[in-house]
Parts: sequence; C-alpha cells; structure tokens
Amino acid sequence: MAQIALSRRLRRTPFSDGVEAAGVKGYTVYNRMLLPTVFESAEADYRHLKEHVQVWDVSCERQVELRGPDAARLMQMLTPRDLRGMLPGQCYYVPIVDETGGMLNDPVAVKLSEDRWWISIADSDLLLWVKGIANGYRLDVLVDEPDVSPLGVQGPKSDELMARVFGDRVRDIRFFKFDKFEFEGRELAIARSGYSKQGGFEIYVEGSDIGMPLWNALFAAGEDLQVRAGCPNLIERIEGGLLSYGNDMTDDNTPHECGLGKFCNTHTAIGCIGRDALLRVAKEGPVQQIRPILIDGDPVPPCDRPWPIVAGGKRVGQVTSTAWSPDFSTNVAIGMVKLSHWEPGTRVEVESPDGLRGATVRDKFWI
Amino acid sequence: MAQIALSRRLRRTPFSDGVEAAGVKGYTVYNRMLLPTVFESAEADYRHLKEHVQVWDVSCERQVELRGPDAARLMQMLTPRDLRGMLPGQCYYVPIVDETGGMLNDPVAVKLSEDRWWISIADSDLLLWVKGIANGYRLDVLVDEPDVSPLGVQGPKSDELMARVFGDRVRDIRFFKFDKFEFEGRELAIARSGYSKQGGFEIYVEGSDIGMPLWNALFAAGEDLQVRAGCPNLIERIEGGLLSYGNDMTDDNTPHECGLGKFCNTHTAIGCIGRDALLRVAKEGPVQQIRPILIDGDPVPPCDRPWPIVAGGKRVGQVTSTAWSPDFSTNVAIGMVKLSHWEPGTRVEVESPDGLRGATVRDKFWI
Repeated sequence: MAQIALSRRLRRTPFSDGVEAAGVKGYTVYNRMLLPTVFESAEADYRHLKEHVQVWDVSCERQVELRGPDAARLMQMLTPRDLRGMLPGQCYYVPIVDETGGMLNDPVAVKLSEDRWWISIADSDLLLWVKGIANGYRLDVLVDEPDVSPLGVQGPKSDELMARVFGDRVRDIRFFKFDKFEFEGRELAIARSGYSKQGGFEIYVEGSDIGMPLWNALFAAGEDLQVRAGCPNLIERIEGGLLSYGNDMTDDNTPHECGLGKFCNTHTAIGCIGRDALLRVAKEGPVQQIRPILIDGDPVPPCDRPWPIVAGGKRVGQVTSTAWSPDFSTNVAIGMVKLSHWEPGTRVEVESPDGLRGATVRDKFWI
Repeated sequence: MAQIALSRRLRRTPFSDGVEAAGVKGYTVYNRMLLPTVFESAEADYRHLKEHVQVWDVSCERQVELRGPDAARLMQMLTPRDLRGMLPGQCYYVPIVDETGGMLNDPVAVKLSEDRWWISIADSDLLLWVKGIANGYRLDVLVDEPDVSPLGVQGPKSDELMARVFGDRVRDIRFFKFDKFEFEGRELAIARSGYSKQGGFEIYVEGSDIGMPLWNALFAAGEDLQVRAGCPNLIERIEGGLLSYGNDMTDDNTPHECGLGKFCNTHTAIGCIGRDALLRVAKEGPVQQIRPILIDGDPVPPCDRPWPIVAGGKRVGQVTSTAWSPDFSTNVAIGMVKLSHWEPGTRVEVESPDGLRGATVRDKFWI
C-alpha cells in the first residue's frame, strides 16, 4: 500500500487537527482536499456508524456560492431539475449537466434566499464551469468558493448529540431542509442530510476559525454516546446505493443512466443548458443504468478501476464500487448495466482481479 | 503517515502497471489521477535524476483539446500571453486567468495546427472553465479531454535513451518545440520539455493501449543507462524554481505575483478575458511576488500548509514548498513575499512547525 504525500495542494480543512488527533489511518483526495477514509477499520467504522454517532469532516464538499439578481436563473441553467417550486430553507439533490447532457457533478443545492445559493459539490471543480457560464452569458451574479466547510453528524444518535449542542429545535429539521442555529455567536445553517442512510445532519460551518471549537464541543457533549470521528463508509454507502461521482458515474453518463431521472424535469426545466440533449433520453430512457449487483463468494478485493460485467462472452456493463457487507454476508456492489441485462435477477459474471465471479443484478439496494 | 485509499475516482493511468512494478512508495492526486511522488526516497530519486535518466508517469497532466474554427480565438481568450506569433510545432507556457486576473492554471499550450490545440494542464479542472466559456460565447469549437497521457523522460541521459527508441532525429527537437515520431505504427508528438531542470522530453502518448509497450521499450533500451521509474522531485523542482499550481499559487494570485509577468503581453493580448483586470497590475507591478527563500538550520519538516513569513512581528509573506537540498546543504523553499521585504538578501523569519527559523530572501533559484 502506498503512502499519501501531503502538500498544500491537497488542502487541509478546519477540522484536520481533530481528524489527526483521532488517529486517521487513510485519506483520499476530494476536490483537492483531504477526506478521511478510515479510522479504526472499514468494518469497525461501519459497525459504529450503524449503532452510535460519528462526526465527519466532509469539508471537501466545497460550496459554490451564487449571489446576485441572476443567481436563480444561473442555478436553473445548470440542472434539468425544475427549481421553480424550491423555497429558501430547502436542499435539492440536483444533477448538473453540460450541453451534451453529461453529468458534471451531482451536488446538493442549498437555497439560502432568492438571490443567494450554495451548491455543495461532489468531486469536480464545478466552480470553474459555473464561472465560465456566468461570464459567457454575462449574468449579474458573483460566483465564488466561500469559507464554508460542512461537518457531518451521522448515525442513529445524531439527534441526541446535536440537540445537546444546538438545542432541541434541531430535532424539528425535516429531511433535506435546513434552518439556522447559533454557535459561539455565529449563525450556522444546519440541514438534515448526509452521505449515509443512518440519519443525521450536515452543519455548514461558515468561518474556519470555529471549526475546531465546534468539533471539540460535539465530542465533549457526546462522550456517553460513544461519539467518534468517522467518514463516509464504503460498505454502508454501497448497501444504501449512494452514488459517488467519479466512481460510479462520470461526464460520460446522463442523469438517466445514473438512475437520477426522478430528479430531472426535462420538459419544464426551461433554461437548462443540457435540456435539448436530454429530451430524447428523458422520453425513451437510457440504454444502460446503475444497478445494485450482488457478487457471489468470498470477499472481493477493493475495486480501484472498473471491472467488466460479462454475459454470454459479451461485455454488458461494469462494476465500479464493491465491498464485503458484514450485515448481509455478501459482496455488495454498484454497477452500470446494459438494458439487455438489467432486469432484477439476471445472472451475469464479473471480472474481478482474482478471477470471474458469478453475480446477480438486483432490484433494490440493501438498505 | 496515512495510506492513500485507492478507488476508480483517483484514476489510474496507462503506465500504472509499470509504476507499481517499479515499487512506487508514495502517491499524490493530481487532476483526480494518481501521480507518483517517491520510488526509493526523495534524496535517492533526486541523485539519480541528476546523474542518469528517468521515465515519469505524468499522465495527470491531462490535455484539454480545442478543435474547430474558433480554437485559436478561444485559446487567446484564456491567457494574457499574446499568441499571434505562435506556430504549429511550438509549446508555450501560458498563465490562464479568470475575469479578475486570478490564475486558474499554468499549463503548457501545444499548437498542433491553427484549429487544433492541446492545453497540458496543472491541477485544476480547466476543462470545465474552457467548456463554460466556449458554451457561453457560442464559439464554434469542440472542447474535450482526449486519451492523451504525457510520459516524461528526464535527466542528463534523456537524449541518448530517446534516440535509441525514436531515432537520432529526437536530438534535433529544440526547447519547447515538438515534432512527430512513430512508435508501433502510431504518430506521437514529442516535445523537449518537462518538469525538471535536468533536460528531457515529454511524449504525448495518444492511445492508452500503447502506454505499457512504450514504457517497456524505454526500459529495455535504457538498461545500461541505469534508467529508472521516477517522478517530479520536490527537492529538484524547488532548487529550479518550478512552481506548483495549488501549492505556490492559487486563483487568489495574478500571474505577476507568480513572477510570470514575462509570459503576459497584457496590452496586445486582445480578447483575453482577464485583460482589463490585469492592465493595472501589468503597469504598476504586484505588491507581493514569488521568491526563492533559503531557510537556516537543520532540515525542516515537509510543508503541508502555508508557513507564515514574519519580520518585525508582522506577517510579510508565506512559504509553501520546502525541502532539504543535499547539493546545496541548506533548506530550499518557495515563498510569496510582500514588496517591502522581497529585495534579495532581506532577512526574515519563517514559522515552521518546529519553531521560528531565520531565512533569507534570494535573488535567484539554485539551479
């Protein structure tokens, strides 16, 4: 296993001191920023996440801020999801597409007010696309990356921990809504959201200086809840079918291929740059789509490149995320499968690094 | 030290199999792709680079291809360097700036023909900015990332090794020029360029399938030259004053702050998006600028975040890259220093993680 070579270019976060003190063992790089991947072990982190509560440094979900009279217009240009009904205080999962309908990112849009939005991005410099579009169309809008770093609080005891720090009102936040809460005299947006299926919150920490004070406050308040430092967990995210941009899909894929057609209102999303390109696929459907894949046998090795899915000697797709699930005692995986083989129950084979494995295309993810 | 967690999102390259077989010990992530950082040790790799020849997997220098009738116009919109005199077969180092004059990247532009260019990028998704601009200005140009992965051949024996594989004509390539050479029936652009001061070439490997065959051909031909797998070397690049985008400068900085004013022709670069914003700084000069910094004393620890430069109790700059130089028996560093303290010979102090260190602002880099 190779070490990661640290440098300023792989940006530290307001919480890095806490992450290091908690004994982080592995990192990935996400939006040119450090993202922890493991503390104790993937399995131990997974077990703890499902039973207790974890604090996640997800600063790498950088924000692209749109501010000004054309902010809402620009936001709609970026996505085929119809945003007309979206209210301040809401979060929307929005596929972002280019002029060919290819996915550039799959962020969460946060509507702060009619003329101020945050886009909480996955792993690509969406800032550059948005700045280019704003400049080219001469829109009246400022586009930049503010000093905002999301801190995740995930797991079944999240409500209890958050209530101890921010008061019982956090319990009233509904899924994909946010409200404002005070911490050390600062107003912070807190949403009920996060990259797990165990429930929890994302705190949009505005101002790096309060990063470690907030981190420490959460750990002090949660000692008896067994709060730990955690991070997005590969096993749990595959069980839950949470896609990872760059892993499970790229700019080669349309939202429909990613199973995100339900977040597209291609006919009414007037102004969306990729609208023309998506009209046909929206009507007729894609020829390949993301599916849960169960892989037979013993635990497979980590998936660091696409593994072909084959049937009858032909390539019919690829697997891009895999893990051994302790709870389901099987290999869980996310793959992109051609229409001819995507029906639930279809038997296929996966070319894993240690040989061909039998596999089954599933209807639903595990959790 | 933390491990790097591998996944498809951190893209492998056409040469990754060779890099692994050569015993890579450390990686960084650059343009969401794996970039080796150390094989034997930073010092041993450095010594070998200065004496022999190395093959570098710099696939992470992805290409942004511009193709079509508006390609040259778009290229000029991106940079304050005047491109009117540039001929096919030339490479230009070009600062890329946004509408505020902030650096978005510092790539090498490769002019293949009047209507076809490659931009060989540093670490940011420049593709997204260029696509956004092309779309917003409705230019007649295709913008995408082709299957082109640069392979570096660096070190004093580079000419000899390359001549054995591509013929003696490679010796005639002049600095920052390229020509076409055949390998296994494929025409490849080869430039005399690279991210070291030891001389060498960059082969623009078009078609991932010939990556390992070319890698193997170079190693087979260079056995008696002691050819080894290598990578950009931190020590040598600081000695040589080769900047690293994201480390030594960011989008906060103008080209003039980075000492790249000589690559800006702000008055005549008509069409450059950042031209208006840069006119004043081009005339009056910047208030801070990149400087070589010599840090006193024993080897400093690795620099993974900016270290403040102070003088008289005030912050007058920051150091962003450091290394111990075996050849110069001192700590070499790159910093950004305010006008008040940037004169050669100025004594300052650097807040390193193990305490305040005396330091001297230098006139020139070491090599």
